[in-house]
Amino acid sequence: MAPTPENTPAGPVLKLAQPLPLDSGRSLAGVQIAYETYGNLNADKSNAILICHALTGDQHVASPHPITGKPGWWIRMVGPGMPIDTDRFFVICSNVIGSCMGSSGPASMAESGAPYGMTFPVITIRDMVRAQVALVDALGIGKLHAVVGGSMGGMQALSWAANFGDRIDAALIIASTSRHSAQNIAFHEVGRQAIMADPKWNGGDYYSEGGEDPRKGGPESGLAVARMAAHITYLSEQGLTEKFGRRLQDRDAKTFGFDADFQIESYLRYQGLSFTDRFDANSYLYITRAMDYFDLAEEHGGKLADAFRGTKARFCLVSFDTDWLYPTSESRTIAHALNAAGHPVSFMELSSPFGHDSFLLDNDDLDRVVKGFIR
Amino acid sequence: MAPTPENTPAGPVLKLAQPLPLDSGRSLAGVQIAYETYGNLNADKSNAILICHALTGDQHVASPHPITGKPGWWIRMVGPGMPIDTDRFFVICSNVIGSCMGSSGPASMAESGAPYGMTFPVITIRDMVRAQVALVDALGIGKLHAVVGGSMGGMQALSWAANFGDRIDAALIIASTSRHSAQNIAFHEVGRQAIMADPKWNGGDYYSEGGEDPRKGGPESGLAVARMAAHITYLSEQGLTEKFGRRLQDRDAKTFGFDADFQIESYLRYQGLSFTDRFDANSYLYITRAMDYFDLAEEHGGKLADAFRGTKARFCLVSFDTDWLYPTSESRTIAHALNAAGHPVSFMELSSPFGHDSFLLDNDDLDRVVKGFIR
Repeated sequence: MAPTPENTPAGPVLKLAQPLPLDSGRSLAGVQIAYETYGNLNADKSNAILICHALTGDQHVASPHPITGKPGWWIRMVGPGMPIDTDRFFVICSNVIGSCMGSSGPASMAESGAPYGMTFPVITIRDMVRAQVALVDALGIGKLHAVVGGSMGGMQALSWAANFGDRIDAALIIASTSRHSAQNIAFHEVGRQAIMADPKWNGGDYYSEGGEDPRKGGPESGLAVARMAAHITYLSEQGLTEKFGRRLQDRDAKTFGFDADFQIESYLRYQGLSFTDRFDANSYLYITRAMDYFDLAEEHGGKLADAFRGTKARFCLVSFDTDWLYPTSESRTIAHALNAAGHPVSFMELSSPFGHDSFLLDNDDLDRVVKGFIR
Repeated sequence: MAPTPENTPAGPVLKLAQPLPLDSGRSLAGVQIAYETYGNLNADKSNAILICHALTGDQHVASPHPITGKPGWWIRMVGPGMPIDTDRFFVICSNVIGSCMGSSGPASMAESGAPYGMTFPVITIRDMVRAQVALVDALGIGKLHAVVGGSMGGMQALSWAANFGDRIDAALIIASTSRHSAQNIAFHEVGRQAIMADPKWNGGDYYSEGGEDPRKGGPESGLAVARMAAHITYLSEQGLTEKFGRRLQDRDAKTFGFDADFQIESYLRYQGLSFTDRFDANSYLYITRAMDYFDLAEEHGGKLADAFRGTKARFCLVSFDTDWLYPTSESRTIAHALNAAGHPVSFMELSSPFGHDSFLLDNDDLDRVVKGFIR
């Protein structure tokens, strides 16, 4: 019998009655899954679309973020009359486990009565998906009309297809990859080392330092540096040049000092600092670890095509020509594996100057592709 | 009258009698320039080649590093019978000002009797070259047979051509650029913020904490993170995949923890930590700043070709096809500007899987190009 979701001020939260089994061999008791829904589930429960968020995303895909007050992160894609049309579809988005927006993560209370910190189990992309399956079960939905995700969201969509392929009719994977490359791991490791090098990280035990807000009192400086490094990988060299070039920030000449003379410096510093207001450093460690561990072929005997033999889902893959984090070649590898497993697949490389972040930005071509696929 | 170099246990050091004027408008008194020479200067002093080192390089181009004991950083290029043949040429390499291997930098003693720290003036690539000109003067050399450099060394070679073009017969610029891009600045800014976020940086005032060694007691954690981030930019995605892929480090399975499970993590951690043994964090701040400020066109009225109108030097440019830090397009921009200024130029893009670092590694094509140009 599925447990019943509970409404909290921050939105509905599902509490799992049973421990969630994890890839590590451990299991996680008392799992909470915070989520949002948009639109209405139809009578035969056939119009549900699950949207999977990226590394630092959350469930607020089409409604304001409760901390920053900013609009949902994909309002250009999800809403009434939008490419993922909430007048027609019941859209679900849940915060991944390991994160810090209401789902169980390192800042959650452990059975000991103190926050988990680094005693939280290391999770995988498949573990995140297991939690989503439990949520879909609790909502009484047998089969999703589609699972959709960009970046780490795309990894989850791939994992749904590979591990719960009979529970989805379609998978839309945008700007993603079937495995983290050495360079991907390297950038994440820089971020983790930046956090762990901050004395305020304190082995992950910093939650009591910040009073009410678990994000305060922690390794904010290290987390900001981690975000800065990651942010560079989300943008293309071309996009940075167009947006900032070597333009100076509110000054006519170089200051011959270490202030943010260049606009790009000022922008990065702001991105780093503002990130610490909304994200937990330990969650950043756990989620980047899950991404680095992701290798769908390895999970299925070393052959990527074998990951897709248990599903009859339709597939659509989208990459962006200036994305150097998960370049088009990664999507092509997935397309070839899907073809080898006998699946038809739509695969499009779209043009955009904005690198990996293109999937979040205005792009008419992407709108058309999504609308055409989510039919 | 040129001052006389003085021999120290770490090699010769030139002390300038006059303050060195700087681009900032300040000047630096008591400048010391540590250098090495190889081979013999001929009677008419026409066989001198200046080699300019990169960001974290030093004067020990072809002789062991006094701290690490490792061989000189370019022994495959410089030595008897090598492409830059010390049986024929008198090779000079000096530590750039701002660095920490014997030339004046933030760890040097200021007139106050304490180390400069952040009171050291912000310097530019042209300021580094001004110090080299003073050294060449002191050695009694009117004109260099060639100035040679890779990466930041290439920027110095370009600056020689632009500002002291009548003092060189030839310039060889490898894997370099005429200006730092927004992405280049962004990566450096991450490194600087990592250092400055380390509480042990202490506003640059940490030299008294380490006892004998000014590198100890400082922001080693921050400097290690800075080095890790930079190191990724020196290698290509392809090179990282070939060298490390997703291979595990001394284990058969993932540990579901935050140790260095992957070889790439272990490698990066080692690169970061070992760097702190040989480099001063404040020097890292100052030299990255000099590189970010570098824009040869801006220095010459906004038109790169105008930078090269005052020289009759021969030019050779080399880029590597997998270098994404200073990609081939940057060398092509320089080649076009040289052509526009009426200079013939040899320009070659060489193939190598190893990204920006290729200029330091075994590459027969590079050997042939260098040997053919330095004739």
